[in-house]
Amino acid sequence: MFNITVISVGKLKERFFQQAVEEYAKRLSGYCKFQLVELPEYRLPEDPSPAQIAEGLAREGQLIREKLPRGAWFCVLTPEGKKLSSEGFAAALAEVKNSGRSAACFLLGSSFGIAPEIKALADLRLSFSDMTFPHHLARVMLLEQLYRAESIQAGSRYHK
Amino acid sequence: MFNITVISVGKLKERFFQQAVEEYAKRLSGYCKFQLVELPEYRLPEDPSPAQIAEGLAREGQLIREKLPRGAWFCVLTPEGKKLSSEGFAAALAEVKNSGRSAACFLLGSSFGIAPEIKALADLRLSFSDMTFPHHLARVMLLEQLYRAESIQAGSRYHK
Repeated sequence: MFNITVISVGKLKERFFQQAVEEYAKRLSGYCKFQLVELPEYRLPEDPSPAQIAEGLAREGQLIREKLPRGAWFCVLTPEGKKLSSEGFAAALAEVKNSGRSAACFLLGSSFGIAPEIKALADLRLSFSDMTFPHHLARVMLLEQLYRAESIQAGSRYHK
Repeated sequence: MFNITVISVGKLKERFFQQAVEEYAKRLSGYCKFQLVELPEYRLPEDPSPAQIAEGLAREGQLIREKLPRGAWFCVLTPEGKKLSSEGFAAALAEVKNSGRSAACFLLGSSFGIAPEIKALADLRLSFSDMTFPHHLARVMLLEQLYRAESIQAGSRYHK
């Protein structure tokens, strides 16, 4: 079974978003071996300087590296990323599977983003929208798109 | 106080998405007179024909027309719509207010979309993403963006 890991930096506070994530994680588990890894956001002072932000991202980057599954195809969610349709996203995932890889990993950064050295490791930089969504909602959106991508590949009716 | 109405076709089934919508509706009420109008989705048979879909959308369109606030600036969410950043969306809303209008109305169609005659009434066709999100999640995304747009206009810290 294909492995999908989502690494997410920052805690989900709202109970309803936690429940939405749990629901899609459960559904995803019907299609793949799914794992959600939640990493702590580095605590920054209010109005942090650019240097403090860079330091925070670098620290988060160290934790992310430790959690990256070895050999996994790696996708980061970032505003400057490529835009795909849901079908295009499903096709990208299908291609990863066809290439013989057994795992994919998706990264949602903290509210200040993702360290450049982590972005440099990515096989795909992906953007969902020109709009900015809060971290917790982005996590629900990502899990829903992963579930949708799997259901498109499986030819189920969910996405129609 | 400015009026914002969201018209949404179809029922929210998941309790966690209802709660997310309620939370953002409550927050929005701090900035505007906010109203959510939920209209029933027209019941179509399984594998409906194009004619049946068109008939369903037309029936939904009649209900939508009855609920459109008179004189409101009207925005429909549709895949072929224009893409805006959250700041661009906030600026568009600010412009509506500055133009002297006292109300804006946003429409989320049913799973088969929006009748062309309703789209033709729109001041703005807007798209959030090249990806397809389910109706219930799109409703949460719209309310969050409206709240974000109001907080950007108010200069609050939420969006930073």
